[in-house]
Amino acid sequence: MRGNSFGKLFSLTSFGESHGPSMGVVIDGVPANLSFSVEDLQKELNRRAPGNLPGTTSRIEPDQAEVLSGIFEGKTLGTPIAITVKNLNQKSNDYKGLKDEYRPGHADRTTLLKYGIRDHRGGGRSSGRETLSRVIAGYFAGLIIPQVKVCAFINKLGPFQTEKNPKNIIHSDDPYTLSFGDKREDVIKFLTDLKKNGESVGGRVSILIDDCPPGLGEPAFDKLKADLAKSLFSIGAVTSVSLGKGYEMAEFTGSEISSDPSNFGGIEGGISNGDRIFLEVTFKPTSTIGEKAQAGRHDPCIIPRALPVVESMVKIVLADHFLRQRAYVGI
Amino acid sequence: MRGNSFGKLFSLTSFGESHGPSMGVVIDGVPANLSFSVEDLQKELNRRAPGNLPGTTSRIEPDQAEVLSGIFEGKTLGTPIAITVKNLNQKSNDYKGLKDEYRPGHADRTTLLKYGIRDHRGGGRSSGRETLSRVIAGYFAGLIIPQVKVCAFINKLGPFQTEKNPKNIIHSDDPYTLSFGDKREDVIKFLTDLKKNGESVGGRVSILIDDCPPGLGEPAFDKLKADLAKSLFSIGAVTSVSLGKGYEMAEFTGSEISSDPSNFGGIEGGISNGDRIFLEVTFKPTSTIGEKAQAGRHDPCIIPRALPVVESMVKIVLADHFLRQRAYVGI
Amino acid sequence: MRGNSFGKLFSLTSFGESHGPSMGVVIDGVPANLSFSVEDLQKELNRRAPGNLPGTTSRIEPDQAEVLSGIFEGKTLGTPIAITVKNLNQKSNDYKGLKDEYRPGHADRTTLLKYGIRDHRGGGRSSGRETLSRVIAGYFAGLIIPQVKVCAFINKLGPFQTEKNPKNIIHSDDPYTLSFGDKREDVIKFLTDLKKNGESVGGRVSILIDDCPPGLGEPAFDKLKADLAKSLFSIGAVTSVSLGKGYEMAEFTGSEISSDPSNFGGIEGGISNGDRIFLEVTFKPTSTIGEKAQAGRHDPCIIPRALPVVESMVKIVLADHFLRQRAYVGI
Amino acid sequence: MRGNSFGKLFSLTSFGESHGPSMGVVIDGVPANLSFSVEDLQKELNRRAPGNLPGTTSRIEPDQAEVLSGIFEGKTLGTPIAITVKNLNQKSNDYKGLKDEYRPGHADRTTLLKYGIRDHRGGGRSSGRETLSRVIAGYFAGLIIPQVKVCAFINKLGPFQTEKNPKNIIHSDDPYTLSFGDKREDVIKFLTDLKKNGESVGGRVSILIDDCPPGLGEPAFDKLKADLAKSLFSIGAVTSVSLGKGYEMAEFTGSEISSDPSNFGGIEGGISNGDRIFLEVTFKPTSTIGEKAQAGRHDPCIIPRALPVVESMVKIVLADHFLRQRAYVGI
Repeated sequence: MRGNSFGKLFSLTSFGESHGPSMGVVIDGVPANLSFSVEDLQKELNRRAPGNLPGTTSRIEPDQAEVLSGIFEGKTLGTPIAITVKNLNQKSNDYKGLKDEYRPGHADRTTLLKYGIRDHRGGGRSSGRETLSRVIAGYFAGLIIPQVKVCAFINKLGPFQTEKNPKNIIHSDDPYTLSFGDKREDVIKFLTDLKKNGESVGGRVSILIDDCPPGLGEPAFDKLKADLAKSLFSIGAVTSVSLGKGYEMAEFTGSEISSDPSNFGGIEGGISNGDRIFLEVTFKPTSTIGEKAQAGRHDPCIIPRALPVVESMVKIVLADHFLRQRAYVGI
Repeated sequence: MRGNSFGKLFSLTSFGESHGPSMGVVIDGVPANLSFSVEDLQKELNRRAPGNLPGTTSRIEPDQAEVLSGIFEGKTLGTPIAITVKNLNQKSNDYKGLKDEYRPGHADRTTLLKYGIRDHRGGGRSSGRETLSRVIAGYFAGLIIPQVKVCAFINKLGPFQTEKNPKNIIHSDDPYTLSFGDKREDVIKFLTDLKKNGESVGGRVSILIDDCPPGLGEPAFDKLKADLAKSLFSIGAVTSVSLGKGYEMAEFTGSEISSDPSNFGGIEGGISNGDRIFLEVTFKPTSTIGEKAQAGRHDPCIIPRALPVVESMVKIVLADHFLRQRAYVGI
Repeated sequence: MRGNSFGKLFSLTSFGESHGPSMGVVIDGVPANLSFSVEDLQKELNRRAPGNLPGTTSRIEPDQAEVLSGIFEGKTLGTPIAITVKNLNQKSNDYKGLKDEYRPGHADRTTLLKYGIRDHRGGGRSSGRETLSRVIAGYFAGLIIPQVKVCAFINKLGPFQTEKNPKNIIHSDDPYTLSFGDKREDVIKFLTDLKKNGESVGGRVSILIDDCPPGLGEPAFDKLKADLAKSLFSIGAVTSVSLGKGYEMAEFTGSEISSDPSNFGGIEGGISNGDRIFLEVTFKPTSTIGEKAQAGRHDPCIIPRALPVVESMVKIVLADHFLRQRAYVGI
Repeated sequence: MRGNSFGKLFSLTSFGESHGPSMGVVIDGVPANLSFSVEDLQKELNRRAPGNLPGTTSRIEPDQAEVLSGIFEGKTLGTPIAITVKNLNQKSNDYKGLKDEYRPGHADRTTLLKYGIRDHRGGGRSSGRETLSRVIAGYFAGLIIPQVKVCAFINKLGPFQTEKNPKNIIHSDDPYTLSFGDKREDVIKFLTDLKKNGESVGGRVSILIDDCPPGLGEPAFDKLKADLAKSLFSIGAVTSVSLGKGYEMAEFTGSEISSDPSNFGGIEGGISNGDRIFLEVTFKPTSTIGEKAQAGRHDPCIIPRALPVVESMVKIVLADHFLRQRAYVGI
């Protein structure tokens, strides 16, 4: 009820403050007998971990996953999977000055308003480190729906833009190459300059979901688009979510829209129709600016490291709805 | 699990197909001893009911609320409140031809893909009539948080636009006057012409929430913005939801944003901060176009009748989070 | 959260006060395309309805089910099924004197303590009429697990006793014949005499579940025995629930028990093992005694009419766990 | 949905297999700003830990609690509290022979039937070690309702018996003294002899709940007795739960019962009435008998170490219902 759990048949319960001993997650609802690879899991975590990507924070935390339960001889047991990640780079001294400071756009002030107490060392529970739990859960969600392809890429970052919903996409592990190809170095330079100037920038992410089975999502409140929207809005810096033609739908007439089914984004009446699902997510600029932002620990733009979080939330929703549909039709 | 319930401490369970005997809702979690006025409830229902608003469907259904439980001598009992509304204007014959027809952007085809069966007479479970349940629940949610002011108005409809987040708003029961003042007749003419031409149009709605207590929303998955986004995306025609500067955030830098707190839309770290909450919702054009749209039963633009639904979903989320917060702090 | 819903994948939401307009239930999670028979449903309701069984209340209420949604052309749609039953025999005048009277063992006083308001006309929300909702839901649960045989019978009523867990049982629609064969008339005379004397009596019910698939129930909190216990204890007059050797287990040693697997009652480690599941439920005597009990509206023993409620709660739990298991293994 | 979570507003999510790296629990819904004492928590854990009590297993595991989140400077933060306990005494070799052996009354066979895989080293997920999670959560539940006194004591163990529901109780940290006073040594000798003989025995536990606020529990499915019954039946060896006169209610008439309100056990209509709540729980004999039971790792009777588990489950249910009631009435 305090909103640290997400999902119904596939669910995760997240815990941890950024400057406490550990972050972690308990994932319940993973079917038994699925093959688990700690290397594959770690690879996903590394995409999110600080220190691996040019143009982002220079802070280094290894973010090593430690499995406490639910796995036996390389297989899932069907029991809850608990995984923790130690908080090694806590440098609480950095945050001493923050005790009575409330950064705009952050949870600092609202946390105090809500609880009457807060762990002022960094973001506490509202830190971006909490998204570790989602990447871990996203890995397991992917084991349930291996046939579904989920790809999140930047479609706008500062002055750089790319096609929002391209027919084909050339995959790359590097988020800058993935979106901007040989403009990669320009983007990195742009981000590095931003950081030097203590500045930050917002951006947008496209999500393409291919080979999603039809019939996922429920007609009333748990429409697939509604659960996807919630999952994406549960990411800190997200300020807008759109499906298909989305935000621009206000500019169109019915006849303009109806001719091309892709405008509806692969979900009709809240239920997946088997076509590609296309979503767009907007991120606000990182709120930390000025001197603090130059100090090294912050990202001038959160999006490059947010991509695995976005993909994970989508996979979590799809795996959950896949299990829900299977319960009723026995697929 | 089939997604016909919404909310945790304040919850509604919706039922009904558009061409079955009745629509209805069971609302659980209304505190005892609140004063109930069937007239006030009916007034809200009438805002949504077809046939009351120029420029919308000419179909007339009285949508009379019938209370089955939970009210005694004008007070809530604290027990579940069940309310039904009869489906009087069923005209199933109109829909005979639809048995094997799947309208784009509708649930026709996906319903069949999901269930292997569908009530082809109208939208069935996916009909807009289902939103009756939300308006009824929204009325009771309002009794829990009477101090909170929720106002949804059209900020874009075809060529007509108005300020998205005005400081003050002059309330009007007429949605056209509310948004466009003395351009009311022009808007109605625009809609009437659209209908004549079998055409439809999308649009956008602003939501202003004033006097919301701080501390509502949870820091991880049940962020207030996440639950609001889900609630709004659970409305059929919604294709985009934004908070604060929202979709435009991608165009800004951190320093541009941080200067004006209203850019964050009244929610920081997922928790209300006591300031006005500002959201924006985009609706797609009604999918039914051409001859069928001219026939009279359809709306050329769904937004005017959707406003009470939007307000209701917001109130439901706020009442739920208000009760959740009260459970832990005893306010 | 106010406890008017039960079940996860198969769930019911119950509503209604005994002297309001209607009782009713919304059942969510019934798979699509199951054949529905209103006659079969009514037959189950009639087993519970007052006025049909000698030795019980002489009050007559037809308890006619009215289907509002979820059924189309004799099939389930997969959408929520709402069914109401009118409260016809309200005779509120009978209850006028009860406004300030709190019957021991009833909810009268605790309802007021909890809500600060109560509908004093009869049991209100705590009336036995609420169990209508369970019988209706039990019928639909039975459609999901048609292979499972659930039989509840009286094993003790006043001086009358029968074998608790017989190998075979000769089914009978009459609860007295079912348990006591040709002693039927003696039991009825016993009950009739009790009523004449304004007296009541407790008793015990055996539940035999045959052909339950193995693997239902979860190892930690949602053990099958735990969910069955909750479901049975949610019936008003139930004061004890036992599994297998149950209450007598305290008298035995490990070696005495281990020799006969049936002592464990078909559930090991909280999970069904495929053998017969055997439970026992104790009911307290009806609290209403003396003059009021003679007046005609009360049962000298609630058990005969409670049997369909007991069977229904068991079926609801089994159907729910069947769907839960199917979600994860795709049976 | 896999049943590893319990509670709604106060909830715990349990994880861990007996022979994996750690057991643990995430507790969500603990209000902020409560004082936490790791010593008090450890004291509760020690009551359950093996090796501390004569007449029980001689296996020694320190069961040291490690706090990962949710506590800051000795106070609860209002965020999820994650606590782990390492599995140090794993001796997996002891269990090698068990790979293909299914102990009666254990989860060995049903786990395989359910999941198609099992960790055969000890009980795995179904091990009694899982109840660690409940004792930890019970400690935090107690912080929410410090005024409520919950006392569980043995009322029957083999030939030893004591009054079930005594007016006053002289508290003792030693469970044998608590129940049987100066017969303590006789009980210990009885248990030691049992163990020598590879035998085990069942028993019964009384639960007295004093100073519980009235109004807890809901009138339909979440009756306080129903949630208590589920919580107690979720403990492995429990085979019967009774409220008030409970199992014996079948022997009584209405007039015999109505005279003494304590027969109803402090819960009327499913709601606490402010009087003492009295419950009784029956445990089956430990299933492991013969040579294996003599080997040292097993308890001849599980009840002495189960008392803190029983008390914890009760406190968890009460704290949850306390928060639920507060949400609606703002106490």
